[in-house]
Amino acid sequence: MSHNTFGHLFRVTTWGESHGPAIGCVVDGCPPGIRFTQADIQAELDRRRPGQSRFVTQRREPDEVKILSGVLPDEDGETLITTGTPVSMLIENVDQRSKDYGEIAKRYRPGHADYTYETKYGLRDYRGGGRSSARETATRVAAGALARKVVPGMTVRAALVAMGEKEIDRANWTWDFIGDAENPFFTPDPKSVTVFTEYLDGIRKAGSSVGAVIEVVAEGVPAGLGAPVYAKLDQEICANLMSINAVKGVEIGNGFEAARITGEDNADEMRMGNDGTPRFLSNNAGGILGGISTGEPIVARFAVKPTSSILTPRQSIDRDGNEVDVLTKGRHDPCVGIRAVPIAEAMVACAIADHYLRHRGQTGRI
Amino acid sequence: MSHNTFGHLFRVTTWGESHGPAIGCVVDGCPPGIRFTQADIQAELDRRRPGQSRFVTQRREPDEVKILSGVLPDEDGETLITTGTPVSMLIENVDQRSKDYGEIAKRYRPGHADYTYETKYGLRDYRGGGRSSARETATRVAAGALARKVVPGMTVRAALVAMGEKEIDRANWTWDFIGDAENPFFTPDPKSVTVFTEYLDGIRKAGSSVGAVIEVVAEGVPAGLGAPVYAKLDQEICANLMSINAVKGVEIGNGFEAARITGEDNADEMRMGNDGTPRFLSNNAGGILGGISTGEPIVARFAVKPTSSILTPRQSIDRDGNEVDVLTKGRHDPCVGIRAVPIAEAMVACAIADHYLRHRGQTGRI
Amino acid sequence: MSHNTFGHLFRVTTWGESHGPAIGCVVDGCPPGIRFTQADIQAELDRRRPGQSRFVTQRREPDEVKILSGVLPDEDGETLITTGTPVSMLIENVDQRSKDYGEIAKRYRPGHADYTYETKYGLRDYRGGGRSSARETATRVAAGALARKVVPGMTVRAALVAMGEKEIDRANWTWDFIGDAENPFFTPDPKSVTVFTEYLDGIRKAGSSVGAVIEVVAEGVPAGLGAPVYAKLDQEICANLMSINAVKGVEIGNGFEAARITGEDNADEMRMGNDGTPRFLSNNAGGILGGISTGEPIVARFAVKPTSSILTPRQSIDRDGNEVDVLTKGRHDPCVGIRAVPIAEAMVACAIADHYLRHRGQTGRI
Amino acid sequence: MSHNTFGHLFRVTTWGESHGPAIGCVVDGCPPGIRFTQADIQAELDRRRPGQSRFVTQRREPDEVKILSGVLPDEDGETLITTGTPVSMLIENVDQRSKDYGEIAKRYRPGHADYTYETKYGLRDYRGGGRSSARETATRVAAGALARKVVPGMTVRAALVAMGEKEIDRANWTWDFIGDAENPFFTPDPKSVTVFTEYLDGIRKAGSSVGAVIEVVAEGVPAGLGAPVYAKLDQEICANLMSINAVKGVEIGNGFEAARITGEDNADEMRMGNDGTPRFLSNNAGGILGGISTGEPIVARFAVKPTSSILTPRQSIDRDGNEVDVLTKGRHDPCVGIRAVPIAEAMVACAIADHYLRHRGQTGRI
Repeated sequence: MSHNTFGHLFRVTTWGESHGPAIGCVVDGCPPGIRFTQADIQAELDRRRPGQSRFVTQRREPDEVKILSGVLPDEDGETLITTGTPVSMLIENVDQRSKDYGEIAKRYRPGHADYTYETKYGLRDYRGGGRSSARETATRVAAGALARKVVPGMTVRAALVAMGEKEIDRANWTWDFIGDAENPFFTPDPKSVTVFTEYLDGIRKAGSSVGAVIEVVAEGVPAGLGAPVYAKLDQEICANLMSINAVKGVEIGNGFEAARITGEDNADEMRMGNDGTPRFLSNNAGGILGGISTGEPIVARFAVKPTSSILTPRQSIDRDGNEVDVLTKGRHDPCVGIRAVPIAEAMVACAIADHYLRHRGQTGRI
Repeated sequence: MSHNTFGHLFRVTTWGESHGPAIGCVVDGCPPGIRFTQADIQAELDRRRPGQSRFVTQRREPDEVKILSGVLPDEDGETLITTGTPVSMLIENVDQRSKDYGEIAKRYRPGHADYTYETKYGLRDYRGGGRSSARETATRVAAGALARKVVPGMTVRAALVAMGEKEIDRANWTWDFIGDAENPFFTPDPKSVTVFTEYLDGIRKAGSSVGAVIEVVAEGVPAGLGAPVYAKLDQEICANLMSINAVKGVEIGNGFEAARITGEDNADEMRMGNDGTPRFLSNNAGGILGGISTGEPIVARFAVKPTSSILTPRQSIDRDGNEVDVLTKGRHDPCVGIRAVPIAEAMVACAIADHYLRHRGQTGRI
Repeated sequence: MSHNTFGHLFRVTTWGESHGPAIGCVVDGCPPGIRFTQADIQAELDRRRPGQSRFVTQRREPDEVKILSGVLPDEDGETLITTGTPVSMLIENVDQRSKDYGEIAKRYRPGHADYTYETKYGLRDYRGGGRSSARETATRVAAGALARKVVPGMTVRAALVAMGEKEIDRANWTWDFIGDAENPFFTPDPKSVTVFTEYLDGIRKAGSSVGAVIEVVAEGVPAGLGAPVYAKLDQEICANLMSINAVKGVEIGNGFEAARITGEDNADEMRMGNDGTPRFLSNNAGGILGGISTGEPIVARFAVKPTSSILTPRQSIDRDGNEVDVLTKGRHDPCVGIRAVPIAEAMVACAIADHYLRHRGQTGRI
Repeated sequence: MSHNTFGHLFRVTTWGESHGPAIGCVVDGCPPGIRFTQADIQAELDRRRPGQSRFVTQRREPDEVKILSGVLPDEDGETLITTGTPVSMLIENVDQRSKDYGEIAKRYRPGHADYTYETKYGLRDYRGGGRSSARETATRVAAGALARKVVPGMTVRAALVAMGEKEIDRANWTWDFIGDAENPFFTPDPKSVTVFTEYLDGIRKAGSSVGAVIEVVAEGVPAGLGAPVYAKLDQEICANLMSINAVKGVEIGNGFEAARITGEDNADEMRMGNDGTPRFLSNNAGGILGGISTGEPIVARFAVKPTSSILTPRQSIDRDGNEVDVLTKGRHDPCVGIRAVPIAEAMVACAIADHYLRHRGQTGRI
């Protein structure tokens, strides 16, 4: 019932604004005995970190995670072991440029949460968007790094599959290319880099912005996770992805395409695999049937809108009801969708880890 | 944390399978003093009820709701007044045709939850899909009929906007046509009826099935409902819609289209309305910015896959690991998406009612 | 977050008032594969049922439970097997004597919830106390009967240990006597029956009432259930007991006595048992240390106030603010504490079953 | 459903162990617009802080609270205004004396959570009790300081009313004496100070310890908070108090005494007050009837066991199953109950604040 918590047994509470002293999260319900290092968490945070190419905001934060509780150091002095108690992680805000917020404090930026936020609470932290700041997502990535360790054998990977009008060629899909130093887009298609570079440079120079589509794939998820009605695994994955800033749509498996085809074409047929376990001959379902995992890869896709911070003036009003024009100067991503890639992995990992524990709790079948 | 409950302050727990004596729901947290009649609930149930045209399953259930608790009769003998305690509603299952489930009990129908359900629980109620049965959704509609009364001035309406390869013409959108006796599809486009009829007749006669896209619009929702991070109003609406059987994708406002356009085109500009309140010049956001309602209509859309019960045999396995072919005889909808229309309205009404109470609880600003 | 639900993984939602058509509960999260019979549930309900002696209210309800969902019949036709989906149980209200509530509807009975209920909700169901009616507790007993099956090897028993000024002699404690036909008090002390009978007859004839103290003992609870901070097993047992009508105090182990003695006297020393497992030489802790079960019997005790329905007139007011005298005619228990015995067992069983599943979920150590 | 969270709308998550870098809490759901200062929080923490007399542990921590999120500074530079987003508060651990935990790491201290903790999680942080450390309670006090601001006009005060065999004389009750510099016991009876001093000095010198009884009184709580069944206000107050370390029993109003008296003596009669509002002529109910507040002062009482850390050796075992004798050297309170006083105030304030928001959410009647 919290506005700032997600998950049930693997439960993540996040806090903090971009212009306070720090942001952080508390991961409660983590099983005891999980071994990890601070570097495991940091590696994920570094993937999300701004300031790594000209296509992501130039705010430079080291984003160094501090682990404050819930772990015992192992004898090697580096490995941490979860104790089953809350893991509190904190990231300091070090790059809070002082500036004059006078105008922004009063004006509602179109496409931003300024107006709704203030309508809800009667006041807002105008210094950077408050909780609506993308900076909050760093804490999700930290939590997700732990979640990955909860489900044995699970891997969760994501990729940018479209940017504005440009799409990747799925025939070129290469997971290993995503972490490549020459790939500032998390695209799985090596050939797409030059296309995206040229396209996004144009967008950036025009002071414009553009949206993106991200695909997340979780492999090694055992069959049986989820529930048939209101704790559907796909439902909770979608909810977790929808909670990411600027996401406007989510789909599982073939998604909206399923609405256009027939039952014969859509059904994933089954056969016995060589290893004596059931397997599916296709995966239109995206690894989930009736809200419960099939054992096939779980596939989700989501749309990120273009960032609303653009250099073209847009009509708006201020808090006194005056009609004004607003343009947003400063550090902004021409395509916020790029950075959503590691965030999406984290959110999907958390959803699955939660269901893994819930399934074990109710059924004892893991 | 329940697998069979949704909502936080306006909280709905449903129970029941299609082949037990009854199904039902418990609505907890309903404000006291809300006035309604049994006929208000029944009217919504009747909209969802199967057996009303040749395009929906011929199972004939009266679906008569009984209200068992949480209300006081008013002096007129007809109006009920909520007391603030749980409203328990029950619908008997009267049409449980006896049949031989021997084969279905063992075989996993492709595209159905049979395999995953049994993997999860180790056993399943093979007589009609257990909790995965579409029949469960009747209880949601009953709960939604109450939810509609919680937010003063709110209306929630939905429409089928595409069926398989066929789409409506939005230029013909007529809300009033949806309840028309000549409209078995919940389409808002009068001219689409003949198109859909011919198309679906073909599908039906071929023993095939087809998906659909539904759009839900909630009007009269005050600005300020929702939250900026993990209780985003759009997130919870999408989660509620994803919990409906066979839904594979959801979007808010312009949804996936937002990923394709620029920030200039996507931003909804603001001006002061003639009545001295802020208004938006467009509604790409679908009535929600930063997870909080703007006061504009809330617009969500979702994709329903084709029903997996088809007459064409599909490859599958049985619980003993034998490879078998499965075809599903019996009563089935060629397009289950049609009946999703009133269900979607109910789920959206519940999400908004819940946030209305949560907003009042935290802020006292309603 | 529900006002009418308790538990987290073993989750019980109850509904209904004494003067509606029925009361009931929905048990969600029950593990699949649990075998029980309708008679198992009924037997517990029969223990709680009023009208069995002159010391409990003469309202005669058969309290026949109907199991509406969440189970599959086994081949024997009698055994039910939980499917892992919500178990809905319903009990009809058959003894709703028609009477004139005119006066009670307006007057606030001292010691009852009439005034507070109406202040909270702005209206109330004056026909029998609404949700505050002791009748609601029947549904808890039904849920508890299922909870008993969740923890292998667990038994939960309770006994009345004091009534007003009279106490049992613990030297005579005989668990088997509690179900004895000659024992209308759930006392474990056979010699106390004549004492209590004489005492309570006097109370009853005087139109008075008296309180009681009940002790609950759960045996066979594995060590390790609970949590160190806010989900302490003792905390949740106490909360469950405090939720029973008229309970004014709860204690674990030696309880308030612990405040009077020294650390040396209070500490339960440990030794290795003959079976090679740790054992405690005493059980002042009541089977729980630091919020987590020790493996020793869990012992809780609680105080029930005298029923407020008495024949002696007491000063009160009515809803119009007039000062009135109120005396309560009708069917009432001179000692409501007696019937609290099976209810307490149910509430403790539910708390432990919930923690059993939670422990399994987080740690996988059961 | 979290093990480390309490509350529903006013929701407190705590984290941290005594031997990590810090402890802290996240308060979610706080209404926006609440004004407070860092000093308001610090003042409550200072009341709980150890090291203030020879009767409480000599661990010296400044316990300086840092407020990391959820607030906007007011123009005066000192007042903070809640924004409605999570308030994260952190307290560093500065006094972590290095010592050899070799023996304690293996041995189970009788009366402590060592054995149960390790049984639950399979491992434990032996450096100070992990989450079972009394240090965790500092974070509750910080959260409670905020909770006090949520309910307009509410005051919550507590007092030590008994220590071991010694009780206060209620005729001398003086609330103002509790904060007196000459009062190291939070006793409301000035004459008790010399009695308690002499008594506790004896206990302390003997290396022994003793329990205590604390009474909490909340005034200014509006009538109507709580709920009739499983969210009873008294139930949640008891749960919150039971969650405090070493608490073994809780009672509301006259508590266990209610079990000994008759209905006539127990019922609180009502009359109209001079101000035209209902008032009660006595308060045996402790301000709560049927789980809902009456408007009278809310009175709760709880028993704290003697600390288990004593200098007298007690029999125990170690993790290898060897039988050992354990005595606990180091810094310990001879009566941990003393420090429970400000903690209890905090926990009661949080319970009431939560119900204040829940009541407003459901009913809109505040």
